[in-house]
Amino acid sequence: MSRFLSENFASLIPYVPGEQPKGQKRLIKLNTNESPYVPSELVVQRVAQAAQHLNLYCDPECTALRQEIAKLLEVQPENTLPTNGSDEILYFAFMAFCDDQHPIAFPDISYGFYSVFAKINRLPTHVIPLKDDFSIDPLDYCGLNENIVIANPNAPTGRILSMEQIEKIVQTNPQNVVIIDEAYIDFGGKSCVPLIKKYDNLLVTQTFSKSRSLAGARLGMGIADSALIQDLNTIKNSINPYNVNGMTQAAGIAALQTNDYYRDKCQTIIETREWTYAQLQKRGFSIIPSKANFLFVKKEGIKGKELYQALRQKGILTRYFPEDRTADYVRVSIGSPEDMKVFIETAEEILNEKG
Amino acid sequence: MSRFLSENFASLIPYVPGEQPKGQKRLIKLNTNESPYVPSELVVQRVAQAAQHLNLYCDPECTALRQEIAKLLEVQPENTLPTNGSDEILYFAFMAFCDDQHPIAFPDISYGFYSVFAKINRLPTHVIPLKDDFSIDPLDYCGLNENIVIANPNAPTGRILSMEQIEKIVQTNPQNVVIIDEAYIDFGGKSCVPLIKKYDNLLVTQTFSKSRSLAGARLGMGIADSALIQDLNTIKNSINPYNVNGMTQAAGIAALQTNDYYRDKCQTIIETREWTYAQLQKRGFSIIPSKANFLFVKKEGIKGKELYQALRQKGILTRYFPEDRTADYVRVSIGSPEDMKVFIETAEEILNEKG
Repeated sequence: MSRFLSENFASLIPYVPGEQPKGQKRLIKLNTNESPYVPSELVVQRVAQAAQHLNLYCDPECTALRQEIAKLLEVQPENTLPTNGSDEILYFAFMAFCDDQHPIAFPDISYGFYSVFAKINRLPTHVIPLKDDFSIDPLDYCGLNENIVIANPNAPTGRILSMEQIEKIVQTNPQNVVIIDEAYIDFGGKSCVPLIKKYDNLLVTQTFSKSRSLAGARLGMGIADSALIQDLNTIKNSINPYNVNGMTQAAGIAALQTNDYYRDKCQTIIETREWTYAQLQKRGFSIIPSKANFLFVKKEGIKGKELYQALRQKGILTRYFPEDRTADYVRVSIGSPEDMKVFIETAEEILNEKG
Repeated sequence: MSRFLSENFASLIPYVPGEQPKGQKRLIKLNTNESPYVPSELVVQRVAQAAQHLNLYCDPECTALRQEIAKLLEVQPENTLPTNGSDEILYFAFMAFCDDQHPIAFPDISYGFYSVFAKINRLPTHVIPLKDDFSIDPLDYCGLNENIVIANPNAPTGRILSMEQIEKIVQTNPQNVVIIDEAYIDFGGKSCVPLIKKYDNLLVTQTFSKSRSLAGARLGMGIADSALIQDLNTIKNSINPYNVNGMTQAAGIAALQTNDYYRDKCQTIIETREWTYAQLQKRGFSIIPSKANFLFVKKEGIKGKELYQALRQKGILTRYFPEDRTADYVRVSIGSPEDMKVFIETAEEILNEKG
């Protein structure tokens, strides 16, 4: 820390992203919930075209991209705001709608960034424990009279709330903004986007990182009533008007125009998840039922950290969360069928070696 | 505005970026200080390669890019922090180092975003008027005991302070951070980067938007003592760890590896600026001496807005700033020699028509 950092941030502990290996050794990467499938050919083609005129600024309003998003999600362009990853739309939302008088509530086990966003914005938080089975009790959030953020499906558990349960939460907090973070919605869940037409206090966030194979392009978005979007846009234009670069805009448009390609890949990921689930179950693992592109798993007799380390030793990256309630688990992203076969064999090997 | 926006931001007026024309009509774009020259071939090639594996996250630490920057600027990688445009590094710096007790000082006529960044961070500001000839008096900033941000060359004037003048400001404010925004430094100015080795309170920011033909890729950076960079990194990792996407990292590396290409283009832009200056002078314009890729010009008898509108009518986009002190001027970015020839002819035509 320098001697100049504002006291406001003296105790700030940043989010720690999953490891991005840089070495030569080929690792099977099941640690950051990336898609194992490359982007569609149209994406690659359009990015290469966009690169040719990067000397000009990109469209700060992302007009064409917003039109394409609106078409697919059956909303209007003014209901959408693309951002530099969905982390950015979440940051904008925490900033715009929360303050001393408007705390933010979220589950104790969820996306680690929520508490960091609260901390950097110096916001009061209300952390609500998941139930013992790692499910969210929607009643904990009904009539709360606080802003709320819920990942649905939740991470790192993979558990999902139904649209009816979400609607109840939105409906019973009419004076507050409810943020539903749908980073993992395309792996078997049902999106709450249609509810934005009925509720002016619902913000749905999504990302192109997982189901649209664009983690490296950084594209997320918010979908909400146009007044909420306008506020988020004011924040955006006061921080970084050109927040989504020209190549990413081109990639996003092309990804939406090749939607079938990605739907097929998501279907394959879902099938691979179910196969992996069954294989782990056969081998005595406990697994949280998941609607995401990862599984949260534990095996009696081996701690999350130990399993993570043993897997890493054998060339497979996963993620563990050392906090008390999650210390028994590892989170395993769903890779290609081949990768998951190696994962299952390796996990079996580790358990056998342990005896 | 929605009914949910925090009172903190109720009076926030965002920055208004220059117009990005979307219509069919071919306009000569001299309004946002872009380079008229496309990126080097290596940039286009590397971006196309990067697009093929966008399903994987980019390196959140920008390791290879920082090494390349360090090599060119003769500093260490830990002295550098790449960001999503230089707007982002400026935002991080305002946030990190300013607060109620640490106001930020800047000139009354400068990059419009400084006051917006101050406003969104709810910071006390100290706005210091430029002298009548639009120059900065360095004495106004010496021993100020406040954080300071100065664009050097300044925008929209193009005037520059010498390294000695900057050093004096940095030296006499040892308890405060001095930010030198060098967005336009490559058009004939001398960078203050070498001073970071001597002063732990100096942050230099630069951008790839202008001299490296990457406005649409969004790449900026901070260069400073490693402790300052570490603080800025803490802020970054608490907001958006993957802030620079994979394509932009690839473009930045390639741009630095083809430095000669860009140096030649900058030289051409400097020559075109000097030609344009002479042509305007011949036609009775007053022009502020500029070390940037734009000229700030006025002509007796015609207001900035009127000249801007007449130029726009004839297919040339420039920019005017309606505030009192700048209302007589238009800012004209330096385009290709062909574009500037058309600009001069058109300006002449307008003056003749006016009679």
